[in-house]
Amino acid sequence: MQKSPSASSLGPGGLDLAQAFFKPIQNTDPPSSTKRHTKISVIGVGNVGMAIAQTILTQDLADELALVDAKSDKLRGEMLDLQHAAAFLPRTKINASVDYSVTAGSDLCIVTAGARQNPGESRLNLLQRNVALFSNIIPPLAKYSPDSILLIVSNPVDVLTYVSWKLSGFPSNRVIGSGTNLDSSRFRFLIADHLDVNAQDVQAFIVGEHGDSSVALWSSISIGGVPVLSFLKNQQIAYEKQTLENIHKAVVESAYEVISLKGYTSWAIGYSVANLARSLLRDQRKIHPVSVLAKGFYGIDGGEVFLSLPAQLGRGGVLGVTNIHLTDEEVQRLRKSAETILEVQSQLGF
Amino acid sequence: MQKSPSASSLGPGGLDLAQAFFKPIQNTDPPSSTKRHTKISVIGVGNVGMAIAQTILTQDLADELALVDAKSDKLRGEMLDLQHAAAFLPRTKINASVDYSVTAGSDLCIVTAGARQNPGESRLNLLQRNVALFSNIIPPLAKYSPDSILLIVSNPVDVLTYVSWKLSGFPSNRVIGSGTNLDSSRFRFLIADHLDVNAQDVQAFIVGEHGDSSVALWSSISIGGVPVLSFLKNQQIAYEKQTLENIHKAVVESAYEVISLKGYTSWAIGYSVANLARSLLRDQRKIHPVSVLAKGFYGIDGGEVFLSLPAQLGRGGVLGVTNIHLTDEEVQRLRKSAETILEVQSQLGF
Amino acid sequence: MQKSPSASSLGPGGLDLAQAFFKPIQNTDPPSSTKRHTKISVIGVGNVGMAIAQTILTQDLADELALVDAKSDKLRGEMLDLQHAAAFLPRTKINASVDYSVTAGSDLCIVTAGARQNPGESRLNLLQRNVALFSNIIPPLAKYSPDSILLIVSNPVDVLTYVSWKLSGFPSNRVIGSGTNLDSSRFRFLIADHLDVNAQDVQAFIVGEHGDSSVALWSSISIGGVPVLSFLKNQQIAYEKQTLENIHKAVVESAYEVISLKGYTSWAIGYSVANLARSLLRDQRKIHPVSVLAKGFYGIDGGEVFLSLPAQLGRGGVLGVTNIHLTDEEVQRLRKSAETILEVQSQLGF
Amino acid sequence: MQKSPSASSLGPGGLDLAQAFFKPIQNTDPPSSTKRHTKISVIGVGNVGMAIAQTILTQDLADELALVDAKSDKLRGEMLDLQHAAAFLPRTKINASVDYSVTAGSDLCIVTAGARQNPGESRLNLLQRNVALFSNIIPPLAKYSPDSILLIVSNPVDVLTYVSWKLSGFPSNRVIGSGTNLDSSRFRFLIADHLDVNAQDVQAFIVGEHGDSSVALWSSISIGGVPVLSFLKNQQIAYEKQTLENIHKAVVESAYEVISLKGYTSWAIGYSVANLARSLLRDQRKIHPVSVLAKGFYGIDGGEVFLSLPAQLGRGGVLGVTNIHLTDEEVQRLRKSAETILEVQSQLGF
Repeated sequence: MQKSPSASSLGPGGLDLAQAFFKPIQNTDPPSSTKRHTKISVIGVGNVGMAIAQTILTQDLADELALVDAKSDKLRGEMLDLQHAAAFLPRTKINASVDYSVTAGSDLCIVTAGARQNPGESRLNLLQRNVALFSNIIPPLAKYSPDSILLIVSNPVDVLTYVSWKLSGFPSNRVIGSGTNLDSSRFRFLIADHLDVNAQDVQAFIVGEHGDSSVALWSSISIGGVPVLSFLKNQQIAYEKQTLENIHKAVVESAYEVISLKGYTSWAIGYSVANLARSLLRDQRKIHPVSVLAKGFYGIDGGEVFLSLPAQLGRGGVLGVTNIHLTDEEVQRLRKSAETILEVQSQLGF
Repeated sequence: MQKSPSASSLGPGGLDLAQAFFKPIQNTDPPSSTKRHTKISVIGVGNVGMAIAQTILTQDLADELALVDAKSDKLRGEMLDLQHAAAFLPRTKINASVDYSVTAGSDLCIVTAGARQNPGESRLNLLQRNVALFSNIIPPLAKYSPDSILLIVSNPVDVLTYVSWKLSGFPSNRVIGSGTNLDSSRFRFLIADHLDVNAQDVQAFIVGEHGDSSVALWSSISIGGVPVLSFLKNQQIAYEKQTLENIHKAVVESAYEVISLKGYTSWAIGYSVANLARSLLRDQRKIHPVSVLAKGFYGIDGGEVFLSLPAQLGRGGVLGVTNIHLTDEEVQRLRKSAETILEVQSQLGF
Repeated sequence: MQKSPSASSLGPGGLDLAQAFFKPIQNTDPPSSTKRHTKISVIGVGNVGMAIAQTILTQDLADELALVDAKSDKLRGEMLDLQHAAAFLPRTKINASVDYSVTAGSDLCIVTAGARQNPGESRLNLLQRNVALFSNIIPPLAKYSPDSILLIVSNPVDVLTYVSWKLSGFPSNRVIGSGTNLDSSRFRFLIADHLDVNAQDVQAFIVGEHGDSSVALWSSISIGGVPVLSFLKNQQIAYEKQTLENIHKAVVESAYEVISLKGYTSWAIGYSVANLARSLLRDQRKIHPVSVLAKGFYGIDGGEVFLSLPAQLGRGGVLGVTNIHLTDEEVQRLRKSAETILEVQSQLGF
Repeated sequence: MQKSPSASSLGPGGLDLAQAFFKPIQNTDPPSSTKRHTKISVIGVGNVGMAIAQTILTQDLADELALVDAKSDKLRGEMLDLQHAAAFLPRTKINASVDYSVTAGSDLCIVTAGARQNPGESRLNLLQRNVALFSNIIPPLAKYSPDSILLIVSNPVDVLTYVSWKLSGFPSNRVIGSGTNLDSSRFRFLIADHLDVNAQDVQAFIVGEHGDSSVALWSSISIGGVPVLSFLKNQQIAYEKQTLENIHKAVVESAYEVISLKGYTSWAIGYSVANLARSLLRDQRKIHPVSVLAKGFYGIDGGEVFLSLPAQLGRGGVLGVTNIHLTDEEVQRLRKSAETILEVQSQLGF
């Protein structure tokens, strides 16, 4: 599917043109000599996968983009629609195929395939439909790109990231779930919108399970580096604990709200994942709340579980987890998150 | 709809925080003092409108983005989905409303509203459904942003650009149709893909009506500044006229192909229109094939008709039309394009 | 100086080409109709001014750039050197003149003119040489761009920002000194470099006078939103107060170090000021430590004094000052900074 | 020189912080596992080298930047000045050393070292001073980065590119001179400025020797894809051959003009080389007039000579040379250029 049939209609005359127009210089490298470039594969070309692919393309994060999906018509349509924009973008090689060989040599594989979350459906309910799917996705990805980083976006993201880790056989630093990176962004937006500041000046983490049991770290909220809770205390401004809970509730509900209004979420998750791709591939060493192997952190020791913690990301994948101070209540919630996920995993037989 | 209800759930305590956190300095401007910024409105939040809005946001082309659509749920869902990405983007104010007052003071209004082109449906067939719609769109846009530029994307784009010009009462330099800007990009991609060059190094114009009667300007094709037809002639490389026709045919068919494969086109038109927005608002003075008032050019004198010609775009809208040399055949085709459109217009009573 | 003489050598034949190549369309706006665009003026084309101008150009922050300097040869050389890069950059109009009329209608005027800081020379010693200079710079800037924001970079920056405020008659929200924005960046780099994290993940403010008496706000240091001092306390990690003092000392010395090694500083101040320009002109509402009218904050009430505080910047200039909690010692140091500056000012007769 | 002494003053306490703040996750890759990133080395930190390095940094073209120069103080000053901007830029590792081992593993080595061209000095006169210098530069670069591309900027660029090819033993596709890429940009600017169009819409090549004997390809000038000479002919607009010659003369003189006005050129060559770096490292496959092994093209067969031809650049270096049509006069001038260079080379003993 790499060459569009339309292009081949240029005919043999076209071929002559290409050969006549450029002439090689002398004493060059043998043509087999391969050169390094950055390749990203996106698995699943639904609304989420395409928002990710398009944002990666606009932000010029890859030299080659490969798309995979089971629906070949939709897949080819999306590939052509991106390719038609070539004149407006830096050159990126865009390929698509139902066959995973198109992903060979990827630096990053982003998996968005999965059933769409229905309005009102809990993320955990999606699981059984998706685990079976992943058994057909992860092994070929690992085979064709044994050195790549796997970034899992499909829901329930924490369990599916664990499943991907197991299926791939990759070291844990190279298997990451998008987790609460987007939840945290929504948290930051709500605070920034309220105070009329730039959301990039707001630091605030939501960690734990991506979904209803996620944990807001109140002590982590700061604006321009100023911790908000200490500020309120120093200013002797009273606030209701309920106010904070309401913000967290608003974050949790906002995904459901968007789904109920437009039928799915796409743009924000697209930007969120492109942001992770950038930190990973350009070795930015930035801290993001993403789903990582959490065993051994904050007293989580019941088993191998992935959930979101503030992790430093770079070219090597997960470089470390930030050892922040949590309140006792936050630790309890986090452990409960872990137990919930472990219980689900125990039914999967991995 | 500007403030999300979720944010207001921060409660009065939240308000206190905002007031306590920032203190004004002394001797400042009166608060009424308004400052200039760049505002873009997008009318219609379907696949095309949202691809445009999201690309404009990613490329940081506006300080404020306003969305308008008749479907309030879908509209609010799209607004929230973009807003949730605030932490990953430069700050842009994003509003949405079913009421056109949200567009007040726009520098550029992009109209994508309209019935979606059905597979196999000719662009002209869409007309009657859309003219009525525009009677409700253009007058309020012109009222709220009397100095703005109107950029029409809805199909059939040439007639609807003419209709918008009439309905707005704007001077013709401030009413532009996206026209064959995207067709030309597809043309450039097909040539670039075939020769394995960067599409930005390929110059090639398709002009005339956006659609089946568009005119490929063969003599305008150059690669890295090298005119291809002269090159072939100089190299004594024979080529079939049919080969060229096939390329043009592939361009015309590619829109239909994408629609038949994925149901609609979105990404490429999104990039194409963002590219025009940039040339207009950042005064780039670049040449684009877009739909402009063509009367008086190339012997088109049958009436007031909009069709695509290579026009120079800048902060003032259309700055001029390139006076290129066309072959007799190309001129004939262009005039025929004009006549086709004029005939349609004559049935509209404008 | 706007049109290069070389261009005029295209001769009358050239003029014919321009007129023949583009033809106006009918029914257009009258040509006098002016359109809004973004204009930045840089006063002084020494190493600092040119690093700022070039960074602004590369980051595409303005549609028009005007340069002013007293040395006409150097000025014209710098203008041509930037213009020659036109093919590699988005289009920006670049003008230069010894006459301030070239700055007319600026949105932002950046003043870098002044004697270069000699190795070992304190910033305050530069003052008398520069105040006289500003009497010839600020009034014409204010006259030609009465609605602009003034951003002062010349040293000693705090006093010269005060002087510019007085000379311009502008409200205080539109007169800003680059202040400790760069000192804070150096602070963040040293911490980030040591911990191997991204400096954009480090929040840390240096406030007060730009120079030897600047005040490091230890409690403001956080990494990825995690306050460092609390972290150390929670982890029961002992640290010497001397360690912190050494970091601040390294920041203060780093400017002198660069000057002693290469003779001047340029790149970092260029990026720092371009960063401020972006927050101001694109209404980013971000918090920066910059020199603002500090009277009334943190008990500074001895008189009208400018020094750096964490301020929110947007299209209206200074939107507010962050009301952060300082330790008693930090407040004392800040007041001492203020007194030092006021004492200097008292000798100037403003 | 990688770690600044200032940073080490954080002391042992600092080290504890780093170890306490981030904890590794379990089951990770062995630490020795290396990951691919993009590294650029710049040799020579004079005005040209630093303009290149800073533009590469601003445009985010590399994950690692290494600087080499013989003057250790100047070198360290420039490194620190760039590093201090870390908070304003995407993270890039910046190192500097007088020892070439700092360049190990580069993807691209840009050589700017060399004596500065004195006002009025011909480029050829610089040669003997620079050939000796290159004997100490190229072999260690080739040793430490055997797979890199060499991009030569020092003058006389054509001969020094040949010398670098010989000294490196690299295949010719990986040894490139910046050549007339900047001359062509000046050519495009002069035309664009005169017609008030965007310089990116102007195609125009200057080829041959970088310097007084360069060859302007008149037939290659087009605006928005419209060939200018044909346009004038079709419009029956008479033009004097002298007018064209004057434009070329203005291009040749403009470098001398900038040098006489400001003492050196820097910004435009910085942008020009960053533009080449982008085409090479991001595999853009764009056509640039750069100095390549020209033997066998356009009847140049007198020996191994490098001069500028329109070449397609990508991750593999020079991918091919555009086989454009030249007039007999243009071919004659090009061959004369080649002979001039060959004569110089014959005196060098390579």
